Amino acid sequence: MALTRVKGRNPRELRPVTIERHYLKYAEGSVLISMGDTRVICSATVEEKVPPFLRNSGRGWITAEYALLPRSTQERTVREATRGRISGRTQEIQRLIGRALRSVVDTAILGERTIWLDCDVLQADGGTRTAAITGSFVALADALAGLVAAGTIPRLPLQDFLAAVSVGLVNGELLLDLDFEEDSHASVDMNVVMTGSGQLVEIQGTAEKQPFSREEMAAMLDLAGEGIASLIAIQRQVLGPLADQVGTGHE
Amino acid sequence: MALTRVKGRNPRELRPVTIERHYLKYAEGSVLISMGDTRVICSATVEEKVPPFLRNSGRGWITAEYALLPRSTQERTVREATRGRISGRTQEIQRLIGRALRSVVDTAILGERTIWLDCDVLQADGGTRTAAITGSFVALADALAGLVAAGTIPRLPLQDFLAAVSVGLVNGELLLDLDFEEDSHASVDMNVVMTGSGQLVEIQGTAEKQPFSREEMAAMLDLAGEGIASLIAIQRQVLGPLADQVGTGHE
Amino acid sequence: MALTRVKGRNPRELRPVTIERHYLKYAEGSVLISMGDTRVICSATVEEKVPPFLRNSGRGWITAEYALLPRSTQERTVREATRGRISGRTQEIQRLIGRALRSVVDTAILGERTIWLDCDVLQADGGTRTAAITGSFVALADALAGLVAAGTIPRLPLQDFLAAVSVGLVNGELLLDLDFEEDSHASVDMNVVMTGSGQLVEIQGTAEKQPFSREEMAAMLDLAGEGIASLIAIQRQVLGPLADQVGTGHE
Amino acid sequence: MALTRVKGRNPRELRPVTIERHYLKYAEGSVLISMGDTRVICSATVEEKVPPFLRNSGRGWITAEYALLPRSTQERTVREATRGRISGRTQEIQRLIGRALRSVVDTAILGERTIWLDCDVLQADGGTRTAAITGSFVALADALAGLVAAGTIPRLPLQDFLAAVSVGLVNGELLLDLDFEEDSHASVDMNVVMTGSGQLVEIQGTAEKQPFSREEMAAMLDLAGEGIASLIAIQRQVLGPLADQVGTGHE
Amino acid sequence: MALTRVKGRNPRELRPVTIERHYLKYAEGSVLISMGDTRVICSATVEEKVPPFLRNSGRGWITAEYALLPRSTQERTVREATRGRISGRTQEIQRLIGRALRSVVDTAILGERTIWLDCDVLQADGGTRTAAITGSFVALADALAGLVAAGTIPRLPLQDFLAAVSVGLVNGELLLDLDFEEDSHASVDMNVVMTGSGQLVEIQGTAEKQPFSREEMAAMLDLAGEGIASLIAIQRQVLGPLADQVGTGHE
Amino acid sequence: MALTRVKGRNPRELRPVTIERHYLKYAEGSVLISMGDTRVICSATVEEKVPPFLRNSGRGWITAEYALLPRSTQERTVREATRGRISGRTQEIQRLIGRALRSVVDTAILGERTIWLDCDVLQADGGTRTAAITGSFVALADALAGLVAAGTIPRLPLQDFLAAVSVGLVNGELLLDLDFEEDSHASVDMNVVMTGSGQLVEIQGTAEKQPFSREEMAAMLDLAGEGIASLIAIQRQVLGPLADQVGTGHE
Repeated sequence: MALTRVKGRNPRELRPVTIERHYLKYAEGSVLISMGDTRVICSATVEEKVPPFLRNSGRGWITAEYALLPRSTQERTVREATRGRISGRTQEIQRLIGRALRSVVDTAILGERTIWLDCDVLQADGGTRTAAITGSFVALADALAGLVAAGTIPRLPLQDFLAAVSVGLVNGELLLDLDFEEDSHASVDMNVVMTGSGQLVEIQGTAEKQPFSREEMAAMLDLAGEGIASLIAIQRQVLGPLADQVGTGHE
Repeated sequence: MALTRVKGRNPRELRPVTIERHYLKYAEGSVLISMGDTRVICSATVEEKVPPFLRNSGRGWITAEYALLPRSTQERTVREATRGRISGRTQEIQRLIGRALRSVVDTAILGERTIWLDCDVLQADGGTRTAAITGSFVALADALAGLVAAGTIPRLPLQDFLAAVSVGLVNGELLLDLDFEEDSHASVDMNVVMTGSGQLVEIQGTAEKQPFSREEMAAMLDLAGEGIASLIAIQRQVLGPLADQVGTGHE
Repeated sequence: MALTRVKGRNPRELRPVTIERHYLKYAEGSVLISMGDTRVICSATVEEKVPPFLRNSGRGWITAEYALLPRSTQERTVREATRGRISGRTQEIQRLIGRALRSVVDTAILGERTIWLDCDVLQADGGTRTAAITGSFVALADALAGLVAAGTIPRLPLQDFLAAVSVGLVNGELLLDLDFEEDSHASVDMNVVMTGSGQLVEIQGTAEKQPFSREEMAAMLDLAGEGIASLIAIQRQVLGPLADQVGTGHE
Repeated sequence: MALTRVKGRNPRELRPVTIERHYLKYAEGSVLISMGDTRVICSATVEEKVPPFLRNSGRGWITAEYALLPRSTQERTVREATRGRISGRTQEIQRLIGRALRSVVDTAILGERTIWLDCDVLQADGGTRTAAITGSFVALADALAGLVAAGTIPRLPLQDFLAAVSVGLVNGELLLDLDFEEDSHASVDMNVVMTGSGQLVEIQGTAEKQPFSREEMAAMLDLAGEGIASLIAIQRQVLGPLADQVGTGHE
Repeated sequence: MALTRVKGRNPRELRPVTIERHYLKYAEGSVLISMGDTRVICSATVEEKVPPFLRNSGRGWITAEYALLPRSTQERTVREATRGRISGRTQEIQRLIGRALRSVVDTAILGERTIWLDCDVLQADGGTRTAAITGSFVALADALAGLVAAGTIPRLPLQDFLAAVSVGLVNGELLLDLDFEEDSHASVDMNVVMTGSGQLVEIQGTAEKQPFSREEMAAMLDLAGEGIASLIAIQRQVLGPLADQVGTGHE
Repeated sequence: MALTRVKGRNPRELRPVTIERHYLKYAEGSVLISMGDTRVICSATVEEKVPPFLRNSGRGWITAEYALLPRSTQERTVREATRGRISGRTQEIQRLIGRALRSVVDTAILGERTIWLDCDVLQADGGTRTAAITGSFVALADALAGLVAAGTIPRLPLQDFLAAVSVGLVNGELLLDLDFEEDSHASVDMNVVMTGSGQLVEIQGTAEKQPFSREEMAAMLDLAGEGIASLIAIQRQVLGPLADQVGTGHE
């Protein structure tokens, strides 16, 4: 039996997406991204140093941190600061976000500085990690544009657009951009990160309930590609003229 | 030389205050409070148990947690989860918030349940702890009203309104509701928590640079009283009809 | 320029694989698996309880822990016990191992007990997480067979074989089962977990240096499938008669 | 009904106070202070460096640590070292002690060095934090006098005397210097830190059970002032000739 | 060249020893023991439960904790609570103290309760662990006598006296009860715990600088035996009539 | 009644001992030592720096870490990394191993570098700490020989052989090299570390159940001496020609 999506959403449709740019006063870049009821603040901070393994390399670094506000979730989530340690889930997500954004930055143009991407989830209704990646791209673009404007770096070190979305199999049906309820019934859950040119950056597919076939995987990738194209169109629109500088900085 | 306040604010004037009620979807009560550029999400969560020392007492508990988002501050603040421990400043603030709100709750009416108040600072431009108290009162009222509506408790266990504000001496001048810049130049900094009937609940005065006299203290308290009265007027307005049930639940 | 593999290995060839069964005296199941110079001890422990979220569900749980011995690596790796916290990489790997093995266990047959899979890497020359999954399957089979032999559970709750392997793109060439040196030069790195019937359980593909196309992904999956089929043949041989009971326990 | 104080003590009377100077062999300054059954060892240690934020400032730092011995309390208190973290209460107290003592030190005369004040409570019968402040002043004076004697600093950088005491409202009656039993019945509890010239340095008033009026607050401050004057008289006597150098070092 | 001991002490002589009984108001047993400048507070706390491995065994438990006050040492020692973890040295010492005292307690008479021995070092001039054992015996005797007096247990469960002392080889000379200075020059350091009947309970000998012979070991044991006999004579005197009940409780 | 040892072992007999040299590919020295069913991997790592207290001393350092694999034990042992802290037992053992090995190294010849000895127990059937010492000696010799071969240090800085063994009293009988079962029934347990010339380096004797006499101690030491002589014969054989360089490097 097919599942009826909230508010009559089509299986191949994204939830309503908004990206509010310049959301925070102090950060070098920041957005509030909403995908349906999922809301994430993404901020970008420039730090004038790099981790030890990059010192004297001439290259920069992009890293991410991710956290849930306690009442972003249906049941209150205990703060990781209170438990004194960061969960495996959180670490997995922040490693994913950092790795994904790094893939479209020319770190030699960035030079020996680090961009910190902080993704704080105000409300978690599924797809927080993919929303965090899509939103962080815009915050990152603003932070990097600030470095260009200040003359610190010669040009925007973004080689391409980047966005992410989830797809899944729920009751045998292929769905785009799963909300929390859908995700908890999915037999397969896949997060896909792609560039503006449609290349893959990261794919993480997990059989939550039963293994899946090569054919199902291909169909999920097709659908993810459509969703990501839509998200990148929104990023372009939000960034306005800055969008045109993305991908022009290749050496 | 007298200090000129941002945007021509009068020394005895609050910054613009807004309290956005029902800010989060899942929490039993929640607000986004803004005082100037200081913005804090306050959420209230109901938990059906109490700490060990209250078991079988018939009484409830109010507790608070407080955190800064990394880019709420001018320089990025390292997450306490990352450092693995909660700073002294944070613990002091969350103990203050919990203690203050507890003072206006009739915990026998509440019964053996805990209300968690989570105060997450999106932007920190001075006065985050007092904004957290003022905002938490509204979130708490909504969470308690929900318990009344569900028939879980017989009536609203709020004995009075409660709000907080900072006052200080800056370059010899008495100022209400200090922003970050003013606070960092204050010779005396005082946080005051008062009820709707003008009684004191908490007073914390600290000579940051030089000791202060009894007369200066009295003047600071007068000014704090004015500010708190204004804040409580805003709480009343935001709460609408619910405001009338505050203070009627005395046994 | 094509890379010459160590010892003239073919790009589509696994390293020499051995699985030494019953490696530890006390564990309910244990192996030492070697894939080339990568050596991992996998042990399976039966515990007669389940995590809180499964209590009274009638279902069991499979969980994994993973660690590097300090001198499994070229440079000595600081113990996580000494640092007092488990790294993001370790948590990601142990979540992956547990999730993968869980996918072929009928946890209703297992009943309310937990199998702990401990994967301790003696020597790390690439592919430790995939070796850990392949080896853990055998240790798990022995631990489960022990429960059947003791009459604790009615039949072997393994629904299918399971193994894992890495594939990657190195200097534009597709390679199976990357060693450490190859892995550090890979532009794309993919870990694949599959069942005996060739279904996908987990796929994690990461563009380390540059994004990859849908075609490259398909080719990598083909190659991974071949490698996994070879690994499962080895598991079958090592398990002997016990292999025949795998997949026969469906309800 | 009025409360009868232990040993017929007058409501406006301190408990018996003794300050045993030079209590520890190795510390640069140390006392054992007793206020009734409350006993605290205060030691002062000179360290030839300052925290990062004061480097190259020419200014010194005063900081404090506080701990309860496990059997200082009626029930054994678990060590914070065993729990692996410092409680909110402890952090609040050690921040208070450090801030209070800092207020009477001319840190430019002290130069770039830190004085550590360690306050270890042997027996806790109420008022440990105020006893710690009063005792630390004497230990600090000795440590600073040692620096003057060694020619390390030109003169005693103490600008004034400093002591602290608690006051409270218990069953409607105003009491000075509450013991543990009185404190646990107090409706208002206030800790006051004052200088030799009667100026306020810190005031922390908390309504434990019910809010208090401005008039009650004024009466509590009057009583605290009397108690602090008595404590400073004892400090003067204990310090002997050194007392005359306090407050003479202003620039 | 022979070393001249402080204050003309003979190589085979203890430092002046005092044991101040009933040192703390709240503890069930407590002493301040001084051996020369080494001073340790030992307190005994009765807890009406045992660790999990003794539940339903009918037997009690003796455990110990040990800590240095920050300025017990020549250089200030950082608190273990501040570092967030207990050092190897501390753990080794507290395990030794607990094990030693346990050896003379008939835990079946004690019944299912735990005695906590807290050893807090006020001043550390060598031999703190042996002083802690010798002092803890007296605190333990008082706590156990309290249980007898209250009718909780039938008779004193102490099977024998117990004390400890250090011996060492310094510049080739055999010394009893080393102070800090002597200890830091010792080539061999040995801690010995013995009963009133001269039996060995624990011996820990370490070649700090060079290995030692069987003959040297025998001579060190002889000297330790003399010192321990003197310490037990002091324990007997301090305990007065209670001393006569030690060793009479055998079943 | 005398205890019958496993496999008819004589009370004064070691279990079968094997030392497999060069067990790990990357470590500068490594062995797998087996004593009966006890199996420990010992690896030696050279690090070109020393702890702070040795900087500019011209001297090197030897330190050790020790861990149990989770299923080295009959019941699964929780990882210390998971618990977030290292147990007292582990710290005691690693301090013992480091101290013991240090006693035969001329740290001036070693120069300002550290040798890390990692002892990871694959299987724990009693005597893991003594096996770790005996095995570490061989791993250390190989690592040091590597430094000589590379011309980094002028000659082998090993002053003597070193091995360790346990002895104990079980049911009144003196036993050498206790296995887990014997150890858990021992009334006295003693670990002894000796050099090739029969000198004592460390002796740790503990009365687990009842105190022991001087005569019993002498007998235990005699037996330990015999066992250690046998172990050193095996070390000599395993090391081959390298054995002849031990003890020739005295200055």
